[in-house]
Amino acid sequence: MFTLTEPTLLLDKQKCIRNIQMIVEKAQKNNIILRPHFKTHQAHEIGRWFRIEGVTKITVSSLKMAEYFAQDGWNDITVAFPVNVHEKERINRLASTMTLNLLVVSPENIGWLAREVKHSLNIFIEVDNGYHRTGVSTTDFDTIDKILLEIAKHKHLHFAGFLGHAGHSYKSAGDKNKILAVHQESSSLMIPLKEKYKTKYPDLVLSTGDTPTCSVAESFSGIDEIRPGNLVFYDVTQEFIGSCSLDQVAVAMACPVVAIYPERNEVVVHGGGVHFSKDSLTQRNGTVSYGNVVTLHEKGWSTAETGMYIKSLSQEHGVIHAKKEIAEKIKIGDFLGILPIHSCLTVDAMRSYLTTDGELITTYS
Amino acid sequence: MFTLTEPTLLLDKQKCIRNIQMIVEKAQKNNIILRPHFKTHQAHEIGRWFRIEGVTKITVSSLKMAEYFAQDGWNDITVAFPVNVHEKERINRLASTMTLNLLVVSPENIGWLAREVKHSLNIFIEVDNGYHRTGVSTTDFDTIDKILLEIAKHKHLHFAGFLGHAGHSYKSAGDKNKILAVHQESSSLMIPLKEKYKTKYPDLVLSTGDTPTCSVAESFSGIDEIRPGNLVFYDVTQEFIGSCSLDQVAVAMACPVVAIYPERNEVVVHGGGVHFSKDSLTQRNGTVSYGNVVTLHEKGWSTAETGMYIKSLSQEHGVIHAKKEIAEKIKIGDFLGILPIHSCLTVDAMRSYLTTDGELITTYS
Repeated sequence: MFTLTEPTLLLDKQKCIRNIQMIVEKAQKNNIILRPHFKTHQAHEIGRWFRIEGVTKITVSSLKMAEYFAQDGWNDITVAFPVNVHEKERINRLASTMTLNLLVVSPENIGWLAREVKHSLNIFIEVDNGYHRTGVSTTDFDTIDKILLEIAKHKHLHFAGFLGHAGHSYKSAGDKNKILAVHQESSSLMIPLKEKYKTKYPDLVLSTGDTPTCSVAESFSGIDEIRPGNLVFYDVTQEFIGSCSLDQVAVAMACPVVAIYPERNEVVVHGGGVHFSKDSLTQRNGTVSYGNVVTLHEKGWSTAETGMYIKSLSQEHGVIHAKKEIAEKIKIGDFLGILPIHSCLTVDAMRSYLTTDGELITTYS
Repeated sequence: MFTLTEPTLLLDKQKCIRNIQMIVEKAQKNNIILRPHFKTHQAHEIGRWFRIEGVTKITVSSLKMAEYFAQDGWNDITVAFPVNVHEKERINRLASTMTLNLLVVSPENIGWLAREVKHSLNIFIEVDNGYHRTGVSTTDFDTIDKILLEIAKHKHLHFAGFLGHAGHSYKSAGDKNKILAVHQESSSLMIPLKEKYKTKYPDLVLSTGDTPTCSVAESFSGIDEIRPGNLVFYDVTQEFIGSCSLDQVAVAMACPVVAIYPERNEVVVHGGGVHFSKDSLTQRNGTVSYGNVVTLHEKGWSTAETGMYIKSLSQEHGVIHAKKEIAEKIKIGDFLGILPIHSCLTVDAMRSYLTTDGELITTYS
């Protein structure tokens, strides 16, 4: 299919497009806005695959990434990260030409935005719908009202709605009912906000929806917008959580074998922390994996169980657990496929893909 | 000193140069070759600081990195990673113009090198001096002799010596005597190889020496060459191991505060897995840290204890533990300094530095 010489992040375009179509159809069925998070794939080309399916609004995790996607014609972008009060230049540049939606977490943010930004801006109030990372408590009406009062003072600032991220869905460990319970609870924390504020702000949007809940839930009643990111590729963690099957994982790293130690049940590949980053997963059998080995073939990879996984990572080395009888069949120079534990960070480390059709795709940085 | 707007990796050039001078002097005193590992800093500019101190030979972790440093005039480079039999083009390109030293771990490697490489090459046999990652056992004379026999068949291949990496020194957890014991044991596994083979190969080099052992040991008798990398910057892990004091750590990330939650003893900064990578350290008090907070000032940072550390990292968010009374004094927009857990992977994620003198330095990729 293509010639490999070094650690290479393979992308199965067909699987990826099926993942995109699945969520596009689900959003259409529910009549909600799909604003996919592009922090996972970070690539113009893959963004265009969403555009072909009708997506027009996107989410990113930094203003720098917003600039990158604006360059490819995206003109309605939410930066799903609390506004950084030092980035007035990027904000002004972006807001002058497109619909820029920013997150605020405190009334002080508004004073700064009003003063430093000269263009029309949409403001989401980030609320904490159960994850407890960032955001105003969904019952802290005092703070919410203060923020709304501040926004109302400035003509170029527009209240867009409430945005939450139920990241605690990632702790569901294979129990779809737990994911659905997080979906239910996190939505039900936000829905009363719409009831309370919709008279004054009839267009306000409730935005939530991470990869686990968007993958498992079929109904999103009361919610207006979802922002899943990881599901464009999925990964071993998402399969573990229960969001997907391994066959839906659309990326795999190809790593060349450089050393073989059957007597230690180990094989060493070129593929380390600089390729995968360092996220790990404690598997059901208690072993810790930094990536699960699959078998590469002409057109991609098979996800049939190999029993092999990365047991440790240094900067460039990946040490793979492989039973003696399996290790003995592997040769120096063979390429092993490895499904990443966390595809977002793997993509960020690699910064390019090779599709299984042989096309090279680069990311933004 | 400089204007910060986003997560920025600060580099204290004075501290860095002191670290470089310390090891240069130690190598001179011991009359051994210093071949520093450049995988940590990955920057032409910082390489030149070594050159000023008289260093002429370097180590890198990939052929790609060798190409980058060759472009800046380095002409004696060891790639301290088992040779990847798919990279014949890079090997030929490099070997045609400079002294390229490669690592082999099996006799098959030699047949491939002899066949595919047309230029003069130096070959180190990688030996396992106790870390058990890669390398031939130091007592597996059968394999060593096979490799030497293969090398001898080819005029353009030259046996350079034995190379080991005592990475288990990283498990010493604050006990300098343990580091010295690893130094002693790992050296004593290699020294008999010289005794055995020096008659036939009078110039053979014994190469070892990681950051912990090179920092703590004063004597390197029997060893010819050391290759420490991390000590150019050090990090929180090295302080924990006992290799350095926190005042020797030459890099700190500056991260803007974006949200404050005194009631949860937390502050959130822009600074996540894409900035630090994901290495963590279980501290002496049992808490897990992804980076320790220091106080930034005009000319750099103070390492006085702040009690703050990164307790969790997502892609862009860093959640910092900060006691209520401390969190209450922090304002949105403040910059916090964060000493990285693992400076090598942080540099690899960031790909640029800002020195405390205001100079921007970029890395190779």
